[in-house]
Amino acid sequence: MTDKVLIYSRFPKTMIARFAERFELLDTGGKPAREMFSADALGDIRAVLTAGGTPLGAEAMDLFPKLGAIVCYGTGYDGVDLKAAAARNIAVGHSPGANAASVADIAMTLMLAATRRILVADQYVRSGDWAASKPSPMMRPQAGMPGRRIGVYGMGEIGRKIAARCASFESEIGYFSRSRYDLPYQYFPTLEALADWCSVLMIAVRAGAETQHAVSADILRRLGADGYVVNISRGSVIDEKALVLALTEKTIAGAGLDVYDKEPHAPDALTALPNVVFSPHIGGHTLESHVAMQNCVLANLTAFFEGKKLPYAVK
Amino acid sequence: MTDKVLIYSRFPKTMIARFAERFELLDTGGKPAREMFSADALGDIRAVLTAGGTPLGAEAMDLFPKLGAIVCYGTGYDGVDLKAAAARNIAVGHSPGANAASVADIAMTLMLAATRRILVADQYVRSGDWAASKPSPMMRPQAGMPGRRIGVYGMGEIGRKIAARCASFESEIGYFSRSRYDLPYQYFPTLEALADWCSVLMIAVRAGAETQHAVSADILRRLGADGYVVNISRGSVIDEKALVLALTEKTIAGAGLDVYDKEPHAPDALTALPNVVFSPHIGGHTLESHVAMQNCVLANLTAFFEGKKLPYAVK
Repeated sequence: MTDKVLIYSRFPKTMIARFAERFELLDTGGKPAREMFSADALGDIRAVLTAGGTPLGAEAMDLFPKLGAIVCYGTGYDGVDLKAAAARNIAVGHSPGANAASVADIAMTLMLAATRRILVADQYVRSGDWAASKPSPMMRPQAGMPGRRIGVYGMGEIGRKIAARCASFESEIGYFSRSRYDLPYQYFPTLEALADWCSVLMIAVRAGAETQHAVSADILRRLGADGYVVNISRGSVIDEKALVLALTEKTIAGAGLDVYDKEPHAPDALTALPNVVFSPHIGGHTLESHVAMQNCVLANLTAFFEGKKLPYAVK
Repeated sequence: MTDKVLIYSRFPKTMIARFAERFELLDTGGKPAREMFSADALGDIRAVLTAGGTPLGAEAMDLFPKLGAIVCYGTGYDGVDLKAAAARNIAVGHSPGANAASVADIAMTLMLAATRRILVADQYVRSGDWAASKPSPMMRPQAGMPGRRIGVYGMGEIGRKIAARCASFESEIGYFSRSRYDLPYQYFPTLEALADWCSVLMIAVRAGAETQHAVSADILRRLGADGYVVNISRGSVIDEKALVLALTEKTIAGAGLDVYDKEPHAPDALTALPNVVFSPHIGGHTLESHVAMQNCVLANLTAFFEGKKLPYAVK
């Protein structure tokens, strides 16, 4: 009998095609599992595949009395109640580092697009205003990358890749994270101190209860009127209301956002702003990143069904 | 008597304000000098300040019988007829390297924005289509930067900075230039060979008669259907008609353009294309780049009026 895997979040078919070759997939399409499958079918489920950001707590786990493994597609697992899983002896796996380069690259893309005002630039050319010699919205030169102070919040695999990329742009790099590492970047003991120092805050911290709204109105204000914030972690790390206010009142210059508090619902007050570059949570969405994440998922599921430990378990 | 400098191209006032502190500026605003000033006034002119891309040939030089120095604001000097200048004993100066980082950074911005499809991504979020769960135009994942083959055409200061930045993105770097350098990148003896190998062609070559339409229909075809071209050099280096055709027929995937054949007239057939990211020749347009370029201009003009050699002469 083929091993069964319940697909708990909504995934495009193409993203889970490789799993269908090895396992029997029960795809909820992101809808409640109880509505999609019978209690009998759910009772058989020993493994679920989920997106790390999708809430998956004790109640959901108890839908599957035989559940032994929750495998997250991607590096994040903030939606999974780890304590509830541990209490039920459910292993939790993810794809550590598999999408780190891809996510770091979207952070760089958003930072450069925001600071070089590429949406405004593109529109000025595309509309014909440049050809018509209409006044340029780009007239006032902006600060470039050399010498710019980039603050990286979180120094995991993604943070390190962001820092390495920024260093090649001749920027100064500072960081704040729980631990201080042996890295050639300036360490700041608090997020406040990092925000006071930097002009671009790159949010690369692993999201969780303790980072909820860590980037508050106060932190944003410390970035200053020439400051930018880029978030490729989770929407929960920024106080989104404070961000809208800071961008509207121009207490900061702009932002680049790949993630939002209640995806896919980026608030209208935010999406109406001209000084933000948006992307729809596509940080990890590149060919090689998907292949790498799928490799981790396959390795985790295969090991689980063979009765072994997950090779990419959440620690 | 204050030394006089004729401003030959159109410059924003803010960009030439520092020169007005030291010299008497006769600003043509980019209009023909003869229409703006009397023959007497032009007869006094010993130095002109110009943008390197503005055509400045023998006839124009002869408007100023006492002309001894042509100083270009920026690194380029392709508009200046160097032979005509030499024949008249006119020194030609520029700002070598002053804007190299800023131009390399716009190249990176355009490449990342094009390959990660940031205009489409931003519009998908901004329009509310993402929130409404409309089909995503981003569904098919694209290749990312790790392992991508980046071809750099021209290995001067800008090319080197582009290569160093791309290397930090874990890409493979190849280059073609007249000379082979002791650099940790793969050298290709022809542009054809580079185009066959790479999937992104970064045009960073110094423009001139010998590079006119060097990036031809043939070179573009060699990039392949997943290929991109980014131009931050001069519009003349690409055969713009062939580029429009390649983008329209999707024989290449996309482009990022900061420069155009007849600026500011980017052709409608080009600006209508969704798979291009445009900027209005803002490569060197950052605060620190302007300061550095102005420092070169001031040093060149000061030396000239003191009867010394230009410290930043065109070689």
